[in-house]
Amino acid sequence: MAAPSSTLGFTADDSALNAPTPTSALADRIERLAGRTVRAGADAMVIGPGADLRYLVGHSVSSHERLTCLVVGADGTTTLLVPALERPGWSGTPVEDLTLQILSWRDGQDPYAVLAALLPDGARVLAVDDYLPAVQTLGLQAAVPGSALMLAGPAIAELRMRKDVAEVAALTAVGAAIDRVHGRMAEWLRAGRTEREVAADISAAIVEEGHARADFVIVGSGPNGASPHHEASDRMIEAGDSVVVDIGGPSPAGYFSDCTRNYVVGAPADPELGVVHQIVRQAQAAGVAAVVAGASCESVDAASRRVITDAGYGDFFITRTGHGIGLEVHEHPYMVSGNSRTLEPGMAFSVEPGIYLPGRFGVRIEDIVVVGTDGQPLLLNNATTELLAMPAARDGGMV
Amino acid sequence: MAAPSSTLGFTADDSALNAPTPTSALADRIERLAGRTVRAGADAMVIGPGADLRYLVGHSVSSHERLTCLVVGADGTTTLLVPALERPGWSGTPVEDLTLQILSWRDGQDPYAVLAALLPDGARVLAVDDYLPAVQTLGLQAAVPGSALMLAGPAIAELRMRKDVAEVAALTAVGAAIDRVHGRMAEWLRAGRTEREVAADISAAIVEEGHARADFVIVGSGPNGASPHHEASDRMIEAGDSVVVDIGGPSPAGYFSDCTRNYVVGAPADPELGVVHQIVRQAQAAGVAAVVAGASCESVDAASRRVITDAGYGDFFITRTGHGIGLEVHEHPYMVSGNSRTLEPGMAFSVEPGIYLPGRFGVRIEDIVVVGTDGQPLLLNNATTELLAMPAARDGGMV
Repeated sequence: MAAPSSTLGFTADDSALNAPTPTSALADRIERLAGRTVRAGADAMVIGPGADLRYLVGHSVSSHERLTCLVVGADGTTTLLVPALERPGWSGTPVEDLTLQILSWRDGQDPYAVLAALLPDGARVLAVDDYLPAVQTLGLQAAVPGSALMLAGPAIAELRMRKDVAEVAALTAVGAAIDRVHGRMAEWLRAGRTEREVAADISAAIVEEGHARADFVIVGSGPNGASPHHEASDRMIEAGDSVVVDIGGPSPAGYFSDCTRNYVVGAPADPELGVVHQIVRQAQAAGVAAVVAGASCESVDAASRRVITDAGYGDFFITRTGHGIGLEVHEHPYMVSGNSRTLEPGMAFSVEPGIYLPGRFGVRIEDIVVVGTDGQPLLLNNATTELLAMPAARDGGMV
Repeated sequence: MAAPSSTLGFTADDSALNAPTPTSALADRIERLAGRTVRAGADAMVIGPGADLRYLVGHSVSSHERLTCLVVGADGTTTLLVPALERPGWSGTPVEDLTLQILSWRDGQDPYAVLAALLPDGARVLAVDDYLPAVQTLGLQAAVPGSALMLAGPAIAELRMRKDVAEVAALTAVGAAIDRVHGRMAEWLRAGRTEREVAADISAAIVEEGHARADFVIVGSGPNGASPHHEASDRMIEAGDSVVVDIGGPSPAGYFSDCTRNYVVGAPADPELGVVHQIVRQAQAAGVAAVVAGASCESVDAASRRVITDAGYGDFFITRTGHGIGLEVHEHPYMVSGNSRTLEPGMAFSVEPGIYLPGRFGVRIEDIVVVGTDGQPLLLNNATTELLAMPAARDGGMV
């Protein structure tokens, strides 16, 4: 399917870029988490700012040194603890429509003592979210004598990794938005410009096409493409270069896009590029085809890896095949050897095999895929996966 | 002193916006931290991505789920552990000029086992940086049987809170950059525009004037100004509104600006605004005057607070007076009641008293101040602290 060429071409579905999560869905998530708190053997879960908090109460804040956290007790009580001076910022957010207590603490108070006092009586086993900073993790531990800490992440991941219909709509809309950016690549990518210049234009387009912001813009030209997490440098793009472009960001509603395509500036300088690209394309298609309900995560990795290994490039496929995506750009489930988890409808993740030839170039093709309600793969990125030629001339126009 | 009116008016000092930290300074910091590891009673410190890592090795990365950390042993060994696929991103950074080992781990390996193996023999007391995510904190704890965790933050803060000459130059340059943005406020702030529209223009100017990015842009008009951490909303700014503008971001070298000024659109609608602004102005000047080597942090808070309390507004000064600043926008030392720490040359922090009248308006004046080598306060923000009138008319030009 050809990349859409429209600019700022929002369709009706793009309402999902902005749609807030209904209060009823948030309440249901908190209730299910309380149940999982019991099953995990924890007395309470403590969740700081970030994607977990946004998933549960529909809003988060940036995490500074002051303690903000949601406390979900195994006894069914739920409390949001916030710094007093940030309390007004929670007004008008979905939190106020949820059945939970909002408590604030003031500068000068010990927030961990306040937190300890609102745990269920006798609470000792405390599950903290995966990203709670150590200063708060150890602060909590010290404030509750005899406490034992565990991670809340696995229990929350069990909820978050199974997207509901509205979440799939949100990921679909932001996937289409990043497709539109790839569809406009010839506006910016040409010989004589630096990676950084191209990346700046792509960043602006990511916002223009409906994202809240650009989160990452990898423009890996020539040998820089051989580093999977290279971002963008002052390297001047030259005629003949292969260029890996891996871009994404969150929608205003918080759901992420992430899509990689490969471009070549004029005629490829390296005669192996076309061959390698075709192998990666087949590997990526094999990975997508392996996405069926009931299969394992590692089988998706194996399907992509087999194609590359059989072609003799196995040593140059140095990453896992994919990562879950949603309110974070990397989340569960991971498509990696050793992960025997079974795929279920609603799971959303990348399929992104690659071949990285040090000192020469890299090729990676990445789409976001959802396991559909019919158990079959649903592609959220539909820009062509072909190797696309960009103008070689410094003043070249559109191809 | 009047706000500079120049646009994009970088001076020679602005080279400090970009100046990297010399390798010798980094090596010295690591050596001093190793000494503090011993003194803190820890066998090793484990420092993840963030400002601490950037301070010690001159570079950091964004923290995703893969483990990246610097291990500083009490035995003097230093190792940087990075994911294999991110190893190329460390090439060409100051890390390669430092005397430390760089180890990488591959997807499929247990990074905590790798980390445990490179700790000093018998290491049990491990200090982790304040922001290490719980998933890594508890992962490390589990990988080292019998381990006891403590925070590395206090030891690192002892280094970071005393800025060297180059760091003060970096803060001075970025302070001048944010002053230039405040000096241009009449370009954007007027009745008939929303806070969000004004904030978008300010964000662009923050970058134009030399920052790497805008980190926060608070535009609190009318009653929104009464919430200290309000950001920017769709509220339309009206004639007569008071507007609190609190803005800042990091320089390319990583050092933050943070400066708050107050504007009024046309003639103030609330007759108390002028009086309140004068009280805050006096309180802020009193706080700055209290910044002398040998005084305590809490005495700076007390100096500002006394002015506001004596004027009868004590209940409406709901924050501490200031926070340290450097590679983070909030860091040690904090100007707050209960902090008896003594001020020393090189300490840099905000002095930002305010009066917040719920439902009406807020006033806050914020400058960054450094304790000079002579023990006296050095102001890094020099835009006027007067209440500045902006055009009331929707099509109004410059005042």
